[in-house]
Amino acid sequence: MDVIEPVRWSDDGAGVRILDQRELPAREVYRDLRTVEDVFAAIATLAVRGAPAIGIAAAMALTLAPDDQVASAAARLASARPTAVNLRWALDRMERAAEKVRGSPAELRSALRAEATRILEEDREMCRRIGEHGAALIPDGARVLTHCNAGALATGGMGTALAAVYVAASEGRKVHVYADETRPLLQGSRLTAWELTRAGIPTTVLVDSAAASLMKAGEIDLCIVGADRIARNGDTANKIGTYPLAIAAAHHGIPFYVAAPTSTFDAGTASGEEILIEHRGADEVRCGFGTLTAPIDADVYNPAFDVTPATLITAIVSDRGVHRAPYDFGPLAR
Amino acid sequence: MDVIEPVRWSDDGAGVRILDQRELPAREVYRDLRTVEDVFAAIATLAVRGAPAIGIAAAMALTLAPDDQVASAAARLASARPTAVNLRWALDRMERAAEKVRGSPAELRSALRAEATRILEEDREMCRRIGEHGAALIPDGARVLTHCNAGALATGGMGTALAAVYVAASEGRKVHVYADETRPLLQGSRLTAWELTRAGIPTTVLVDSAAASLMKAGEIDLCIVGADRIARNGDTANKIGTYPLAIAAAHHGIPFYVAAPTSTFDAGTASGEEILIEHRGADEVRCGFGTLTAPIDADVYNPAFDVTPATLITAIVSDRGVHRAPYDFGPLAR
Repeated sequence: MDVIEPVRWSDDGAGVRILDQRELPAREVYRDLRTVEDVFAAIATLAVRGAPAIGIAAAMALTLAPDDQVASAAARLASARPTAVNLRWALDRMERAAEKVRGSPAELRSALRAEATRILEEDREMCRRIGEHGAALIPDGARVLTHCNAGALATGGMGTALAAVYVAASEGRKVHVYADETRPLLQGSRLTAWELTRAGIPTTVLVDSAAASLMKAGEIDLCIVGADRIARNGDTANKIGTYPLAIAAAHHGIPFYVAAPTSTFDAGTASGEEILIEHRGADEVRCGFGTLTAPIDADVYNPAFDVTPATLITAIVSDRGVHRAPYDFGPLAR
Repeated sequence: MDVIEPVRWSDDGAGVRILDQRELPAREVYRDLRTVEDVFAAIATLAVRGAPAIGIAAAMALTLAPDDQVASAAARLASARPTAVNLRWALDRMERAAEKVRGSPAELRSALRAEATRILEEDREMCRRIGEHGAALIPDGARVLTHCNAGALATGGMGTALAAVYVAASEGRKVHVYADETRPLLQGSRLTAWELTRAGIPTTVLVDSAAASLMKAGEIDLCIVGADRIARNGDTANKIGTYPLAIAAAHHGIPFYVAAPTSTFDAGTASGEEILIEHRGADEVRCGFGTLTAPIDADVYNPAFDVTPATLITAIVSDRGVHRAPYDFGPLAR
């Protein structure tokens, strides 16, 4: 299977190469980022997005900081997106790696590069394991609903929720994916439909509010989505629209799965009530894609994420296995 | 209250003046339509939209036909939106009025004009009554969620669902409206937010899938939406996205109201299962903002409506009153 690499080292090794996801699905454009500020901007503007991919990009970005500015660069990068726990986690790891170095600037740089590469490679491995555990939940002929993009484009590997689909397909099972378009930024129609189609998985796009009609018609066998942060009790923050999907799935008796690496489990968060939700700019809603679709001064409510309580989640798939309620992710979180 | 008139007689009485809704929210452009063909084009291209408003515009258009071409003009207008039931109903009424005239061409013209004016005025009166019955459900300080546009822009009067808001506000109660943008055609952000803001009602726009977060946060006191068809048992077809909203409202214990004139009650339909759902073109989803937002050949599921079962509806507000379960709209339907 031809897997996309949304974040990797530049060919000359002196930068971070990203697939600019703002250009999809129209164009497949790669950019070489040469400074911390370039990567900050890429994360803040969603050129690179998806909790694991953001963490990887930020880790790699620290190798671009001047030797005496690693700590300030980490603080800057951490502020690019507040909700995804992977970002903070990856930066903490990089800072710990830097603290261990007692030698020259060259040794520091080498240690940082090695640690960022490990984060990328571990993420690939985690995706593969999530895919294997998740694929066991996807029967032959399954019609799978997903939201946003929890695929290869969101990670260093083959994704989280979509990894389960990729592995099921690679094992010879037929899978049809229904991809919510995912307003306001349309990661489902722009990204999920693009990467699944590119991989040969039959995919149908729908507006977010049409998912319940499909469920009622008996056209959905299971839902699987990613996660941006999972509290100790299993409450899960994910892209806005995940929570109403989980409510509708429960209403129709359809299994609702969350797939995420253990790096998404946050030991410091007891429940979803403690999760800070990022609110984004009004123009994402008012003039998405350059067209004015609301009064220019309209007040807008635009949370980037919502929290799905553990009670609405059938199981959580991680690189460690398939977890079911009652959840206690304290020991697994890192 | 400054209520919009999306359809009325031109100032000189020799045409139909419409607010061109294709230009909203960017520009408030009125057009004087002088021929049957002008009105046909306005209906077909959604310059005028909303089932009641379409019926009124078509009725008025018949007064613009040459004396010997009233029947052919009616046939032409009926074909502009073949699924809109009010359109056929209004034209039938006009033709019956014409058949009663035994005098001169001037008398025919006068009879047609009187009947079209009656259709407009009756619609205004129905809206006012729906508003009065509905306003009783809206307490002071209420935060009201609505979907699509069931406002003045859809009718000859002040709307259906939004009429309740307008009347509550005119009675001095504070109301804050949360308007779902309503993908794919964005009638909520383009039209509802525009007409409410213009009328001085505080309004916040959100993507459809953010409504559940607001409910969970305790920010919504009630939901009120319009209807395209109501079956005898109360099952209601309305804009896609109404059904998941009703599921989420029930999940959070929030009242969910439907507002519609009794002309929307369909005695010929026993339950929602008999309602045929129109599916619309893929490009509404794939390139709805003039920008390609999905792979160009992506498969798309795009139902225009969904059906909310009566069990999820707290009450149905009509021009005759507030109806609660068990519903039997057979006697009320026309």
